[in-house]
Amino acid sequence: MQRPMIGHLDPLLHERLLEVIDMLRLTWRTSASTVLPLSATGTSGMEAGIVNLLAPGQTIVVGACGYFGRRIAQVAKRHGANVVLVEANWGEPVDRELLLETLAHYPDAAMLAVVHAETSTGIEQPLPGLARAAREVAPEVLLMADCVTSLGGVEVEFDAWEIDYAYSCTQKCLGAPPGMSPIALSERALHRMGARQHEVPFSLDLALLRSYWLERPAVYHHTAPILSIYALHEALRIALAEPLERRWRRHRMAGAYLQQGLQAVGMELLADPIWQLAPLTAIRVPEGIDGRAVQQRMLEEHNIEIGGGLGPDAPAMWRIGLMGPNASEETADLVLGAFEAVLSELAAPAGAAV
Amino acid sequence: MQRPMIGHLDPLLHERLLEVIDMLRLTWRTSASTVLPLSATGTSGMEAGIVNLLAPGQTIVVGACGYFGRRIAQVAKRHGANVVLVEANWGEPVDRELLLETLAHYPDAAMLAVVHAETSTGIEQPLPGLARAAREVAPEVLLMADCVTSLGGVEVEFDAWEIDYAYSCTQKCLGAPPGMSPIALSERALHRMGARQHEVPFSLDLALLRSYWLERPAVYHHTAPILSIYALHEALRIALAEPLERRWRRHRMAGAYLQQGLQAVGMELLADPIWQLAPLTAIRVPEGIDGRAVQQRMLEEHNIEIGGGLGPDAPAMWRIGLMGPNASEETADLVLGAFEAVLSELAAPAGAAV
Repeated sequence: MQRPMIGHLDPLLHERLLEVIDMLRLTWRTSASTVLPLSATGTSGMEAGIVNLLAPGQTIVVGACGYFGRRIAQVAKRHGANVVLVEANWGEPVDRELLLETLAHYPDAAMLAVVHAETSTGIEQPLPGLARAAREVAPEVLLMADCVTSLGGVEVEFDAWEIDYAYSCTQKCLGAPPGMSPIALSERALHRMGARQHEVPFSLDLALLRSYWLERPAVYHHTAPILSIYALHEALRIALAEPLERRWRRHRMAGAYLQQGLQAVGMELLADPIWQLAPLTAIRVPEGIDGRAVQQRMLEEHNIEIGGGLGPDAPAMWRIGLMGPNASEETADLVLGAFEAVLSELAAPAGAAV
Repeated sequence: MQRPMIGHLDPLLHERLLEVIDMLRLTWRTSASTVLPLSATGTSGMEAGIVNLLAPGQTIVVGACGYFGRRIAQVAKRHGANVVLVEANWGEPVDRELLLETLAHYPDAAMLAVVHAETSTGIEQPLPGLARAAREVAPEVLLMADCVTSLGGVEVEFDAWEIDYAYSCTQKCLGAPPGMSPIALSERALHRMGARQHEVPFSLDLALLRSYWLERPAVYHHTAPILSIYALHEALRIALAEPLERRWRRHRMAGAYLQQGLQAVGMELLADPIWQLAPLTAIRVPEGIDGRAVQQRMLEEHNIEIGGGLGPDAPAMWRIGLMGPNASEETADLVLGAFEAVLSELAAPAGAAV
């Protein structure tokens, strides 16, 4: 991001952008589909998929195992869709049989949406085979997957899993600063978009955005965040050089190491270990501990930021991300050490004789 | 942007953000209104104003003196508004009498929108007194102003001019990298927003975004582009330290100097000089010259990027921005010298004896 700023229509940028797109294609594991980085947040990536691929009045079945799944439902409802929400129990992914049974009640459903890596709970929703099974009961359904916390850190196979629309962000497992939302669209999704009859917001119109990114410099839409594109370029280069398969394994091993370490000192994972996501670990705050106070001390005394629960009905929890360069045993050890220090200080009141 | 990355909910960021908001308030020249930087493009700033403050079916009168005015109409139409477009002649702002006469035919109009600084043509649309005159014929009307190319380089008086909603971007006269869209909302606009009955896209919902920025860290909406906030913080600090009034004058003098220099070598301004914007100068491409070829040579041989016409019906033109740190006679001289060099080379065919 320290390279010289150039214009967003500069031919040099166009070359960088084509490289970004080639690298994104490799990262999403797709050959034929359209991939682009939206100049927007991950939430805009979610909303763009919904408003472009689903018409008001059409049915979307949403499988939610946490905050972000419910957000999909909320966004779709605002768009005027008929939203059917299938919720998982806390700590589990959405039951696939239940999801498919529900979908079978809506054979005209236009979209099935799930969260591959639920940032609010640390649960991985298995995707292989889901799209195919869904189309058996609802032939026109497109599968949308939230890959915000998986892309670049957990195996995502856009083509092999027959995903139709997926979105992520730059600041999680890709390890770049926040600012862009990489998306991928299948041929089926493009076809749906081409047949669209309803209006969508200009800034979320994927047909216009696709022209802007891929037919440049012919079509103007907005001014892209040049420095964020540089950062994404470098982040993708690093991810692919590792290479990707090793990066997934590194995330998996670091996550498992952290999770074992936390359990070894008596912490309870929020997710069922079978479905535990590698890059994001959610643990329950032990009885009698002020979770927010611990977060604050972790930040102030150990320079480690951990999250709390998202949303009003979340149980008391801490969320720990080991993503990108931080997916290592070294970082896990720092986190474990800081937890131990903070919790033991809280257990021994200040000034008490030890 | 080289400062350490911190979390978007970190208390340290919250402090920086409050400083950004205080500085934005000074830059917009407003005391009471709500100001925030959207994590989005200027176009999203435009669209956010429309979808939040105007219900589908309501009337918006749009005054357009170029590409971006027409874009407002397009965005409002997508939203389902009744759009009344008042177009100016090329090179002139929208005639105020015509605008008010048109508005008078729609006394229930909910919004009047104009472009303060039209980036596509280099025209400044005078704003003082417009809001008051508009409310005399349409009492409920809110004034929306596109200040993309004016904020930080041309006088903008949000309170004194009684603007209700204005949006800008970071990469023009504020001189920061592209990535955010500073906006301002009046009390009238907030009141309209509070009474809203229609649904708006989640990522453009200004009520949620206002909570996210101003009631932090309580309300989560998205992950803000931290580094862009640092950049905006520094850009605003520089702009206010100059101070602002001197900065406007510097832009005015640099623009006038460039415009005189261009006219001195026979170039024709696209805008009537009375309405000529300081930071953006559009000139007609002389007969017989390939405008895009000149742009390319300016970029490749002189490292100066100038724009062409925006939109399919634009006349052949070059657009030159002198914005932020580039609003100086030195930069104007560089541009004038490069033009002279490129045009004289084109006039003397390669290899011809001189």
